[in-house]
Amino acid sequence: MEACRPNPLRLALAQLEIKPGRPAENTARILATLGEARTAGARLVLFPEMAIPGYLLGDEWERSAFLRECEACGDAVVAASAGLTVVFGNVALDWARKNEDGRVRKYNALFVAEEGRLLVPGNGLGYPFVMKSLMPNYREFDDSRHFYDLRKVALERGRSPADLVVSVATRAGRLGCTLCEDAWDDDYGFSPIRIMAARGEADLFVNISCSPYTFNKNHKRNRLFSSRAAEVGRPIAYVNNVGIQNNGKTVFTFDGASAVYGPGGSISECLPAFEEGLLTVDLPADPAAPLARPIELKEDSISDLLTAVSTGTRRFMKQLGVTRVVVGVSGGIDSAVVAALYRHLLPARDVILVNMPGPFTSTLTRGLAAGLAGELGCPYGEIPIQPSVEAARRQMDGFRLVSADGSLAETLVLTPFVMENVQARDRSARILAAVAASCGGVFTCNANKSEMTVGYSTLYGDLGGYLANIADLWKGEVYALGRHLNDAVYGRPVIPEGIFTVTPSAELSPDQNVDEGKGDPIQYPYHDCLYRSWVEAWNRATPEDILDWYGAGELEARLGYSGRVASRFPDARSFIADLERWWNLYQGMGVAKRIQAPPVLGVKRRAFGFDHRESQLGARYTARYQELKTRLLKETPG
Amino acid sequence: MEACRPNPLRLALAQLEIKPGRPAENTARILATLGEARTAGARLVLFPEMAIPGYLLGDEWERSAFLRECEACGDAVVAASAGLTVVFGNVALDWARKNEDGRVRKYNALFVAEEGRLLVPGNGLGYPFVMKSLMPNYREFDDSRHFYDLRKVALERGRSPADLVVSVATRAGRLGCTLCEDAWDDDYGFSPIRIMAARGEADLFVNISCSPYTFNKNHKRNRLFSSRAAEVGRPIAYVNNVGIQNNGKTVFTFDGASAVYGPGGSISECLPAFEEGLLTVDLPADPAAPLARPIELKEDSISDLLTAVSTGTRRFMKQLGVTRVVVGVSGGIDSAVVAALYRHLLPARDVILVNMPGPFTSTLTRGLAAGLAGELGCPYGEIPIQPSVEAARRQMDGFRLVSADGSLAETLVLTPFVMENVQARDRSARILAAVAASCGGVFTCNANKSEMTVGYSTLYGDLGGYLANIADLWKGEVYALGRHLNDAVYGRPVIPEGIFTVTPSAELSPDQNVDEGKGDPIQYPYHDCLYRSWVEAWNRATPEDILDWYGAGELEARLGYSGRVASRFPDARSFIADLERWWNLYQGMGVAKRIQAPPVLGVKRRAFGFDHRESQLGARYTARYQELKTRLLKETPG
Repeated sequence: MEACRPNPLRLALAQLEIKPGRPAENTARILATLGEARTAGARLVLFPEMAIPGYLLGDEWERSAFLRECEACGDAVVAASAGLTVVFGNVALDWARKNEDGRVRKYNALFVAEEGRLLVPGNGLGYPFVMKSLMPNYREFDDSRHFYDLRKVALERGRSPADLVVSVATRAGRLGCTLCEDAWDDDYGFSPIRIMAARGEADLFVNISCSPYTFNKNHKRNRLFSSRAAEVGRPIAYVNNVGIQNNGKTVFTFDGASAVYGPGGSISECLPAFEEGLLTVDLPADPAAPLARPIELKEDSISDLLTAVSTGTRRFMKQLGVTRVVVGVSGGIDSAVVAALYRHLLPARDVILVNMPGPFTSTLTRGLAAGLAGELGCPYGEIPIQPSVEAARRQMDGFRLVSADGSLAETLVLTPFVMENVQARDRSARILAAVAASCGGVFTCNANKSEMTVGYSTLYGDLGGYLANIADLWKGEVYALGRHLNDAVYGRPVIPEGIFTVTPSAELSPDQNVDEGKGDPIQYPYHDCLYRSWVEAWNRATPEDILDWYGAGELEARLGYSGRVASRFPDARSFIADLERWWNLYQGMGVAKRIQAPPVLGVKRRAFGFDHRESQLGARYTARYQELKTRLLKETPG
Repeated sequence: MEACRPNPLRLALAQLEIKPGRPAENTARILATLGEARTAGARLVLFPEMAIPGYLLGDEWERSAFLRECEACGDAVVAASAGLTVVFGNVALDWARKNEDGRVRKYNALFVAEEGRLLVPGNGLGYPFVMKSLMPNYREFDDSRHFYDLRKVALERGRSPADLVVSVATRAGRLGCTLCEDAWDDDYGFSPIRIMAARGEADLFVNISCSPYTFNKNHKRNRLFSSRAAEVGRPIAYVNNVGIQNNGKTVFTFDGASAVYGPGGSISECLPAFEEGLLTVDLPADPAAPLARPIELKEDSISDLLTAVSTGTRRFMKQLGVTRVVVGVSGGIDSAVVAALYRHLLPARDVILVNMPGPFTSTLTRGLAAGLAGELGCPYGEIPIQPSVEAARRQMDGFRLVSADGSLAETLVLTPFVMENVQARDRSARILAAVAASCGGVFTCNANKSEMTVGYSTLYGDLGGYLANIADLWKGEVYALGRHLNDAVYGRPVIPEGIFTVTPSAELSPDQNVDEGKGDPIQYPYHDCLYRSWVEAWNRATPEDILDWYGAGELEARLGYSGRVASRFPDARSFIADLERWWNLYQGMGVAKRIQAPPVLGVKRRAFGFDHRESQLGARYTARYQELKTRLLKETPG
């Protein structure tokens, strides 16, 4: 095999919106894009991984009719490849073999088509595609559940896996083809790119991806791909799709951000995040030559987070056919941010704001909710829940359970705590659901990640809704998003200042009286930092780790908490009581509530749902935790 | 290596209840059982796979403190092995290496301990354990998400995987050790048992499992293990745990049913399903000799299903600390079966039955509900929802949405359909939740699998509850379970006959008037069979397959439907309209509702939740479906 690249090479990165489970629609977009690429003078055009079927499809992969349709769509793309080298991702079937689950053999595959036919890599397998080698099975990924991989094929055929990794000789040069994870090879002990580079058999590396947006992941990718391109001395062309895909409990956004990494470690112009686009890049004759327009690495900001949340919400509404939303606005920050987000995406008349004052609602928050509605220009109304809550109390007070012999078995007592939940459920399951149904819309879930972590919400109450679009943001991030909406999006305080300064409170009891500065038991920002260590750290912390760090005086640094723990908790006893309170909730009722929670829009590392899989196990503490605790309590006076 | 078996060998199968995520408790049980095994004169004792940590733990595997505790517990078992050969499952750590997700290297491992030390298999890896070779990644299993396997190790070390599969020489003979899936090797192209058998290096094969109960799975296992034992001419000792484990959305039961399969293909006495037990089996001197007490293969019956549902429900209550339940009883079969099930598990006073008649409730069903309560001897009460539903209507009618300028923006109209859902939510989220909270209990979800499939239920209404314990049973199976409860469990009609004969109906509108024989649009048993083909078939059917079968006149046979489709649908038009109606719901609102549904108790192949992973994709039809449809409609007159 030798280099046969035309000189120079114009390649096109097709950053398309891929609709999951919609092969025909995706194929129509691909076919149209082939025309655009030809017009732009491209010789090589790259489409994302799984560009035909989509990727996060749950167990849709088990349906043969769907798979056959994906195959037929792939054939249509191949047939339209005249004059171009077309690289695209699709599911590849081997109907004669089985996956390890006994179903038909499926590969996550990269196809290369030229002049109406598929190129067959020269690895002796005879398959007209490159299959993925490295299977992500973490976070939201389930690759090994559905796809057979190159390493398994090597074992099956008695071959060395490295021998199966070969570049594909095309009119556009020798392409070192990889699929997504194949390039994220640090922890695999197997690197397709390095294998091909060591043999000097690729002029250009290609990575087709279907890679969800995660806060700051692009930064990591830019560093990784850029250093790998420098290492192998060849460009790496990276193409990723845009759109949303979901795994039921979690909705993921895809930001594209396709780019070419030059052999000098530089990066070409990127395609804008979250938008469709076709980027042409002219690669110089010398495959080792640097690219023309290097750009700078940068970390994500609150603005990127806003774009992810907005785009994800907008596309999810579109997918479901949602055109109107009802937001229960309490006068607090969460519902205010949700309302302002939707107002940014929908006409004012289609964002309906409802305030539902209860027995413990202050005039302060009621006024803030009305003020928010005025600023946003949305339809607004108040439905007091006092009458219906009182009706519920009367109904329960009057309820008599009788035994089989007709005698009185039991009467019911509505405790104040029970009444708190009655209020919350009355608001959501009764009022918001009915209002939404009446006006042809849905109602939103305004829960943030801090509340979701410890289940500080009422099932069928404020935990209801069609989508929890800020549930991957800690309370502190919700405040920051609110500021950003005011400052950068609206350019005026659509969220009244009082909403930022009022004590966060559910206002469900006299103990949550904001006029007296009383409110939620969750204390920001300390608990945000604590919960983050439990949920988002790659090696997730447990109470044992927390006590270790506390004992060593390292807790603030480990948690990234800028305050002082000692000023919040005077002694180990109060510190531990707080720790256990929240851990018990996170691992106890929190799990039970998340099982029945709405889909979460995931934008960061470890969103609740399919990204953070959890069983109902109940809270537990290790023997070593108990030892640490005993020691710390002994050291605590009194 | 040569045979060194004492003659004869008494082995003990320790079928323990394993509590997920409770290594210390499990280890205490294991240590106690070691004493019992000694007393029983056993030389070899086998504990299940993952006997220390449990198995279905979600991402609990990512927590190092938990892993360290599991390691320490394993050490305690090893230390207690004097005088015995002890085989047990645990997670094995290699802290110096990484999994492919960058976290610490974990193996699903089998340990063999003798006289306080671990035996090291002679495969050159140096690990003191046997690691699992075959990783299930289907249904509820996520093995490759958490565990590194033998085949990956072979690639990493440049070894042949078969060379790494070796038996372990113990005082009890040479053990061919396998973990669960290792023996279910049909679709893997790699068979640890056959590899060891071919070398003649095992006197006894061992399979330690953590294998959830699935209707008729034991029958399949008995056939598989028994034929494999016959093939290799050696006994296979199989040990499985009991208890429940869950993956959040789905709760699985474990039935144990541990046994020894003799080389003649016979089966030893089994341990009773779902119960803890220690079974000793004396293996003859000649490893190829048949076993003494062969038993017969049998398929599961409704009685096994009842045992699975009852045991699962009982253990789930125990795990959560639930001691009282509130069941909303409508007079229909689902709630009646749920009530009778709970009454079988709890004292009468702790099964509280509430009937909530609404505007469209018949005196017939009201009477049936009261009759059920009388038969079961449970506390019973009625809470009419008419007043609160009327209050909701008045509240909505009186609600005014105002624009920012103070003008009237919109009034709300509660349509009859909206009012149906208002009734359902009023019953569950308002009344049942409050009643349950007031009396210190939880309320149940009475949905069956047919309703769950097509989302024929109201979110925050009848789809609420702490557990959906009959949601893996088709409507026909619910009826059968009801009959079985009357006939075999209670020995009298605790579920009144009228509940079996009344038209199934939600009674939420005049169109669902049971007195006129009107009710649910789901038609049993046809729709049960149709939905089953979509959900439970290993290669799941889609509308394209259904039309193929319909066109070929094979539909009844394919669906296992004993009626005639033509007598239900006079022509293709009506057949297709029905098909699309339900497919649209199954793939549309059905998915959205299941995302927020309670945990499902899974007892069959493909329970909703973590066993049947699904994305919100919306309903779709392939191009070939559209062609088939067009052709069939052309053939339909008129």
